Amino acid sequence: MSAPNDTSPPTRRGFLTGLTGIAAAASVPAIARANDASTAHKTPEPMAAPRNAVSDIIPFYGRNQAGILTPAQTNTYITALDITTPKRAHLIKLMQAWTEASAKLTLGQPVAIPADGEVEAQPDPNDLDGLSLSRLTITFGFGPGLFGKDGKDRFGLGHHRPEAFVDLPHFPGDQMIPARTGGDLLIQACADNPQVAFHAVRQLTRLAYGLADIRWVQSGFASDYGPGKTPRNLMGFKDGTGNPNTSDAALMDKHVWAGSEAPDWMQGGSYVVIRRARIALEHWDRTKVSFQEQTFGRQKKSGAPLTGKSEFDPVDLAANDADGNPVIPENSHVRLAHQAALDGNVILRRSYSYNDGANVIAERWPPWKQGMEFDAGLIFVGYQRDVRTSFIPIFEKMSRFDMMNQFVTNVGGGHFACPRGVEAGEYLGQRLFETA
Amino acid sequence: MSAPNDTSPPTRRGFLTGLTGIAAAASVPAIARANDASTAHKTPEPMAAPRNAVSDIIPFYGRNQAGILTPAQTNTYITALDITTPKRAHLIKLMQAWTEASAKLTLGQPVAIPADGEVEAQPDPNDLDGLSLSRLTITFGFGPGLFGKDGKDRFGLGHHRPEAFVDLPHFPGDQMIPARTGGDLLIQACADNPQVAFHAVRQLTRLAYGLADIRWVQSGFASDYGPGKTPRNLMGFKDGTGNPNTSDAALMDKHVWAGSEAPDWMQGGSYVVIRRARIALEHWDRTKVSFQEQTFGRQKKSGAPLTGKSEFDPVDLAANDADGNPVIPENSHVRLAHQAALDGNVILRRSYSYNDGANVIAERWPPWKQGMEFDAGLIFVGYQRDVRTSFIPIFEKMSRFDMMNQFVTNVGGGHFACPRGVEAGEYLGQRLFETA
Repeated sequence: MSAPNDTSPPTRRGFLTGLTGIAAAASVPAIARANDASTAHKTPEPMAAPRNAVSDIIPFYGRNQAGILTPAQTNTYITALDITTPKRAHLIKLMQAWTEASAKLTLGQPVAIPADGEVEAQPDPNDLDGLSLSRLTITFGFGPGLFGKDGKDRFGLGHHRPEAFVDLPHFPGDQMIPARTGGDLLIQACADNPQVAFHAVRQLTRLAYGLADIRWVQSGFASDYGPGKTPRNLMGFKDGTGNPNTSDAALMDKHVWAGSEAPDWMQGGSYVVIRRARIALEHWDRTKVSFQEQTFGRQKKSGAPLTGKSEFDPVDLAANDADGNPVIPENSHVRLAHQAALDGNVILRRSYSYNDGANVIAERWPPWKQGMEFDAGLIFVGYQRDVRTSFIPIFEKMSRFDMMNQFVTNVGGGHFACPRGVEAGEYLGQRLFETA
Repeated sequence: MSAPNDTSPPTRRGFLTGLTGIAAAASVPAIARANDASTAHKTPEPMAAPRNAVSDIIPFYGRNQAGILTPAQTNTYITALDITTPKRAHLIKLMQAWTEASAKLTLGQPVAIPADGEVEAQPDPNDLDGLSLSRLTITFGFGPGLFGKDGKDRFGLGHHRPEAFVDLPHFPGDQMIPARTGGDLLIQACADNPQVAFHAVRQLTRLAYGLADIRWVQSGFASDYGPGKTPRNLMGFKDGTGNPNTSDAALMDKHVWAGSEAPDWMQGGSYVVIRRARIALEHWDRTKVSFQEQTFGRQKKSGAPLTGKSEFDPVDLAANDADGNPVIPENSHVRLAHQAALDGNVILRRSYSYNDGANVIAERWPPWKQGMEFDAGLIFVGYQRDVRTSFIPIFEKMSRFDMMNQFVTNVGGGHFACPRGVEAGEYLGQRLFETA
């Protein structure tokens, strides 16, 4: 039968797209290499339609991984995988394949899967053909299991585990579902379009076929409230007001990027903690706004701290009301977060909302309804230089005292060491896997 | 404590928003009425921030319900509910509340939940404050259970069930999961933003508290490929090429809107069939493009039928190749759909993609992998004038012969009679509930 897109001559459209690809590659040598490899075939693979507005492209290669300081896209698709191969050489092959594929994906180029044993070569699914690249970023992380699992150092990498990457303790209130928790490898794809993010994960997990299995996946969304505006979470409060300024490089070096204290492969990387926090929205929505504001320590509409008038006014922990009680309650969310920051415990949050349908739940207070409730809430995503001085001390206090815990339950997630960025000519984690 | 947004004087911003609301209401009398009711309170509820660009607003009131002919928004949130109250009067109260709330939601106005028994009045969650309205539409439907369930005519409405709204048979291959199937009431919220769609459903289901319980929910997404472009589904093929032209009013009257054959309450309404079709993407992606094109009967990249060169070229069912075999295979998707259309069986499709994480599955062919696969696919949403002459005959054939069935399994959904639009001064379904 006829298969026109295999046999038709190059079109003007394809030609122009090719130029775009080459222009983009000029400043990114490793991508040019990838292009050379693909054009070395006798029948060149058709290029993707021109869906790459330059502003839509966030380079994959660089000193740091993209998707950490990148202003949050509207959609995320997070995947945690368990490694099934026992061989480091296989892992290296996977990292090389992921590197090449990620560079192509972020440039909007099709990713074909090479033939493997009895399985024939597979084309790109083509579902993005004609679609904007949507600022796709792909951020990778290594879970604790890479450095040892069940008392066994599977890949001989145990001595490379960074000191700052300790196991997380059980926090009060945690209800972590094993099937939604942990993982040896992390892929977080973010884009201004859910299909683009899903496409990337779909391609990358195909490359892991036989080497690593999906453990859990989680999609999330964040609404765009306009330039410079802080988005609201599903509780209706602004979320991210107190985040450190990502354009302050010194601040990022201090709090987000691992420095000289870390092993070489991790310098310029960051440790991410992900928590799937289900919110009892049906209960939250039934409380008074005044109670909600006491819980957050901020005003709902403006986002101002209860001691201020507008969003970025200072949080005054010392202010008391006429009765001598603190204006910002002792167990309010903003007090606990702000005190942690004063103590030097800082996280760069890059969270998303989620809704995953509805399931049966029994309510916790009158009218004691039992029935279907939304499985919706927050995908907390927090980056830091050291979990021992950031997430753990902050969450130790919050999990005990935060009034918000009445409405929020952590039911899954994981933590991962996201290595330094991939420089041109390298592959992901090369300095880890090739160090004795 | 201070609750500034309850006590602060009206701001210029709020004032301007108020004007917008009134201007919009001027041409929609019933909304003006709703506004009057809310401003009659002593302390006026604060207006939403001005997030209503006029082009972002799709009116709720009208001859037909919105969200059917409306060009598809990028996100949907579908909810099916089971009615728990035995009283028609309660249902009417719910329909009135849903009508008023839907008109407000589509104008970006906050929806407060009135006090009810021991439960205090509840404010709007406020999570959309500052966000675009995103072309929100809310489409309601009535399931078979409204007209009788378990042999009992609960609400005395059995004799109003339209003849065209028959029960759906079991189709070959159906694997309908009861918890994901059916429902007495349907709310489909669509918007160019997932948070806006979810917000609407969240508010509407709160209003149903104690009267109807959520049975199943389903979110979906559709990428915007640009004006006039047919989107691609997760299989990578253009989806919607053969859809009837929604700007052809006569065609819509012929195939989509119930006419004089229907009871008064349904005239100008439409019957919707929803199917949650899980796609075995891992398998599909492993097949050759030439096989995929035989399956669809169309070229993957261009969307052209195998007998043509570009997307909208005619589907030539009679064309044979040199060997005398049909160019468009007998069991290809497009042949079955096109033949149905020639027979006068037409559906207006308004489908979405979904991905709901991953779960364990055992593969159906080599290499017989057992493990995690994406729970992703298509939310088929099809509107029609009569399910007896549209969905049923089309799907009878497709479920038996369509090559695509190797990759697609229907695991949930429902069908609903979406009544005529709500005219100003009416409430949803009034002509049904108030007819003897």
